[in-house]
Amino acid sequence: MAAEAASSSPPAAITCRAAVAWGPGQPLVMEEVEVAPPGPLEIRVKVVSTSVCRSDVSAWQSKAQPDLFPRIFGHEASGVVESVGEGVTEFQVGDHVLTVFIGECKSCKHCISGKSNMCQKLGLERKGVMHSDQKTRFSIKGKPVYHYCAVSSFSEYTVVHSGCAVKVGLTVPMDRVCLLSCGVSAGLGAAWNVADVSEGSSVVIFGLGTVGLSVAQAAKLRGASKIIGVDTNPEKQEKGRAFGVTDFINPNELSEPVQQVIKRMTDGGADYSFECVGDTGVVSTALQSCSDGWGVTVTLGVPKAKPEVSAHYAFLLSGRTLKGSLFGGWRPKSDLPSLVDKYADKEIQVDGLVTHDIPFGDINRALELMLENKCLRCVIHMSQ
Amino acid sequence: MAAEAASSSPPAAITCRAAVAWGPGQPLVMEEVEVAPPGPLEIRVKVVSTSVCRSDVSAWQSKAQPDLFPRIFGHEASGVVESVGEGVTEFQVGDHVLTVFIGECKSCKHCISGKSNMCQKLGLERKGVMHSDQKTRFSIKGKPVYHYCAVSSFSEYTVVHSGCAVKVGLTVPMDRVCLLSCGVSAGLGAAWNVADVSEGSSVVIFGLGTVGLSVAQAAKLRGASKIIGVDTNPEKQEKGRAFGVTDFINPNELSEPVQQVIKRMTDGGADYSFECVGDTGVVSTALQSCSDGWGVTVTLGVPKAKPEVSAHYAFLLSGRTLKGSLFGGWRPKSDLPSLVDKYADKEIQVDGLVTHDIPFGDINRALELMLENKCLRCVIHMSQ
Repeated sequence: MAAEAASSSPPAAITCRAAVAWGPGQPLVMEEVEVAPPGPLEIRVKVVSTSVCRSDVSAWQSKAQPDLFPRIFGHEASGVVESVGEGVTEFQVGDHVLTVFIGECKSCKHCISGKSNMCQKLGLERKGVMHSDQKTRFSIKGKPVYHYCAVSSFSEYTVVHSGCAVKVGLTVPMDRVCLLSCGVSAGLGAAWNVADVSEGSSVVIFGLGTVGLSVAQAAKLRGASKIIGVDTNPEKQEKGRAFGVTDFINPNELSEPVQQVIKRMTDGGADYSFECVGDTGVVSTALQSCSDGWGVTVTLGVPKAKPEVSAHYAFLLSGRTLKGSLFGGWRPKSDLPSLVDKYADKEIQVDGLVTHDIPFGDINRALELMLENKCLRCVIHMSQ
Repeated sequence: MAAEAASSSPPAAITCRAAVAWGPGQPLVMEEVEVAPPGPLEIRVKVVSTSVCRSDVSAWQSKAQPDLFPRIFGHEASGVVESVGEGVTEFQVGDHVLTVFIGECKSCKHCISGKSNMCQKLGLERKGVMHSDQKTRFSIKGKPVYHYCAVSSFSEYTVVHSGCAVKVGLTVPMDRVCLLSCGVSAGLGAAWNVADVSEGSSVVIFGLGTVGLSVAQAAKLRGASKIIGVDTNPEKQEKGRAFGVTDFINPNELSEPVQQVIKRMTDGGADYSFECVGDTGVVSTALQSCSDGWGVTVTLGVPKAKPEVSAHYAFLLSGRTLKGSLFGGWRPKSDLPSLVDKYADKEIQVDGLVTHDIPFGDINRALELMLENKCLRCVIHMSQ
């Protein structure tokens, strides 16, 4: 990297390995791809570690956008800046970064507002291309290969907008801090920013995956007195406890609706409930599980089916609040560095959410583990 | 009243006129009813004025509870305490009061919380009886006549729990302040307590009835810079303006969805939207009309059909909040006196919402006007 940093010649295209999806749900194929140089305000990143998020798997399996294949998935990643495009002043070659699936331009109405992370220039990209020119930076023998969320970290090198990367210190472990790029931060932010969990409160979390467990640890750090975890996988009971879950419910073992059990356990309903499954039906259950008068339900999951959230109006009229957020409400550039600091200072747990370390060449195993619900986070090591 | 106040003998049953509904949607019939003395912690009130709220009409028309007829509707009322039951210390004979359809016991978990008006002892009563003993205080020739919301103000005298009445000063006009007993307060509170409308913000209100217009005046008092009123009745344009509406939209005159128009008018979506129609479909439109990132939608209406609120999850995930409230989140005893003061001090408008003054004997006309959407509030004068 040092040699490249010293060079002043414009960066050239790079040929490297990438795990390419040729069609919905088809096993990824390791291909030689050409990665274009970064365009204006873009950076090219040598990916070091990328963890696999549920939404990578959902998008890979989805048949909704067949035209966006071949495609390179992956968005929860850490890496090193390999080269910078015209006009980039924030990053230098060699910087360590996290990629982020929603950027922060710091100049649009939303970024300026200080109360939104829905950047109007660098928001969630859904067309498989880069924000700036609606084109791809990947190709195989001249054929474009589509991006995912304008990140595409299942590649040894990728190009991202400089507004979609966050600098991190050189000493934080890249193969763990990558989890802050999406899932862990989403859970922490849902509890801290969106619900604003208070001390002594009761919390119920539906789904104890990486996001749900991160909600649990955030609630614990806020001093919640009762943290109920709900999951159909009995193995989550022990894992949950490690992240602050005080009471575990397996709905499959109940003879009555889970919301009734929760209401009994919380004297009428939890103060906060979180939907971390990605099932809109569970949103309604979560709403019913929280208290009249002040209960707050936060929906975080991206549903795989039935996109309509539905709830009887009386649950709202009796004083409940239903909210949602992307990335836990964090503004990536403004807020993510403080989370990285908390991780470096051991104030938040991240490492315990990594269940598998997998060489890049075995990336399909990570997708299978996610589909079989046999992992929390699989970290893909690009150099292995 | 003075003679009765001086008497120490226990109150006896009273016979008086009441407008009785004998079946769903059947015109009310003026009957001689017997009103029992107030039980422990109850008061008997000589109703002075009662305005007709949409929910009276909806409940009267509903065929969902045929067993609760004959029934006396009405809940938005002012009156004078005629007698007090055992243990009542807060009220004296001759006090002026507003009745309230949700009470405040000041001792349950919700009342103590200070953040809820969903009193567990004196909450919304749905079975047509009194909270304390599940019996009625009305009868006709020994046959019980059911209550509505434990208020039943379509009667010259009624019995309410002392926790469901709020004392008001002797000088406020009884035939106007009764509107604070429900509709006006619900609108004011939705804007102030539930949405917490901020200065310079944009607000959209679906439905410019009494509640919607009260939201508008509350938003104006908070300094909202744009207050968009949406109503299919073109006559509401002028009325809206008097209550602070700056822009009026008649959806029937549009060739595109109303949310698209609102998004254009507000540079991406309103800061706050309010559903005051009582149509769960409009809740989804209201949610779509407010901004990504921080938009707040408050649902106030009680739907006449389709009780399920439904919305695409993406509207929540992109940072919107959906909330609801009964009675605008006000705790009746703790908060209503301050609204009465604001009315007395001419800080809030109430009088302009009264479109008809109607003698008690003509009460069916008020129900018809409401059904025909030809009124805001009709005030029934019991002594006329």
